[in-house]
Amino acid sequence: MKIAVLGTGEVGRRLAGKLIEAGHEVTLGSRTAGNTAAVAWAAETGGRHDAFEGAAASAELIVNATPGQVSVEALTAAGAANLAGKVLLDVANPLDFSDGPRAVTFENGISLAEHIQRTFPSARVVKSLCTVNNAVMADPSRVPSPHHIFVSGDDDEAKDVTKRLLGDLGWGPDQILDLGPLTTARPIEQYVVLWVALAQALGTQDFNIAVQRAAG
Amino acid sequence: MKIAVLGTGEVGRRLAGKLIEAGHEVTLGSRTAGNTAAVAWAAETGGRHDAFEGAAASAELIVNATPGQVSVEALTAAGAANLAGKVLLDVANPLDFSDGPRAVTFENGISLAEHIQRTFPSARVVKSLCTVNNAVMADPSRVPSPHHIFVSGDDDEAKDVTKRLLGDLGWGPDQILDLGPLTTARPIEQYVVLWVALAQALGTQDFNIAVQRAAG
Repeated sequence: MKIAVLGTGEVGRRLAGKLIEAGHEVTLGSRTAGNTAAVAWAAETGGRHDAFEGAAASAELIVNATPGQVSVEALTAAGAANLAGKVLLDVANPLDFSDGPRAVTFENGISLAEHIQRTFPSARVVKSLCTVNNAVMADPSRVPSPHHIFVSGDDDEAKDVTKRLLGDLGWGPDQILDLGPLTTARPIEQYVVLWVALAQALGTQDFNIAVQRAAG
Repeated sequence: MKIAVLGTGEVGRRLAGKLIEAGHEVTLGSRTAGNTAAVAWAAETGGRHDAFEGAAASAELIVNATPGQVSVEALTAAGAANLAGKVLLDVANPLDFSDGPRAVTFENGISLAEHIQRTFPSARVVKSLCTVNNAVMADPSRVPSPHHIFVSGDDDEAKDVTKRLLGDLGWGPDQILDLGPLTTARPIEQYVVLWVALAQALGTQDFNIAVQRAAG
């Protein structure tokens, strides 16, 4: 697949690199063409790099790996027309650390993912992956099983595409928990504040949670 | 220990019953003396029942198992003087289901537990147990290990007392994760919205999460 990963931070670069290893044709998108991190990444991985707009235009699937508070701005730069009809996998976290960590919400308490969906109604938004650090995202086997990753979205076909992409990253079918509609991106994004507290208590970001059912 | 469990709902009755089995002297507290559920519970378990105030006055440790939105009102009825210097274990969830489930926050986004601590500064507030249903609270062995319960609070001695009480309920030392100060009650309370989504996706409330660290 032709994939644009928007965002040249650690998350974007790591995901983009792993998707190339999985056989995809990946363009790393940045605010401005010729971004130093993107150029270095491309030289290292054989991937492409471009500004948000060019990256999104040429892609069949878009990954939003920009910081949560500037994601709508970045996607606006990518161009609504370049998102239309495409799966838009949102892995961003809208965290605000100014008064203890909190997950920012949008219009009347909705999640970033819903805010993106409302802003770009023709995109097929799926939320996933934001509940683990980038090392676990791209290599879930580093955490002993069982452990789980969540998926939220209103478009079942877009979720199926996303689940296959999660499979390319190493997530097994039994590790993927589909929580249902995109409204469930709210608790997924809010959970990340607990993730921060857990990382602090454990002294590592290299962990994930498992959902364990009672026997019988 | 002499324990008052405030709240005659399923959580209060279940916790109070299990604490009696563990050898504690437990009074179930209700808004008005002679509450039907409390009377029936006392007849069944051999425990005591009383109004909030009498229950709190005679207790060394208080468990708040009232609904989160009326907890401060209930604790006010119990009497600030009857809470002073005592461990106050808050297991309540301030959930609002009017516009999809959300965890209500108080003054500037603080948690219920912090709100209780600010309202009753002489109480030694600890947050725990609110992240599992009452069956798992009182019998963690029904969920296959590993799985974890969180503890938040500013008073280390109060947290130690709470951890021993968790032990009485069946939680092993390796299942108890101390997240640190009472501010970490925020993510604990917010996580419960993810718990609701997971319960819906799994079709059961009989589960818990495990925190799994990466190997090495």
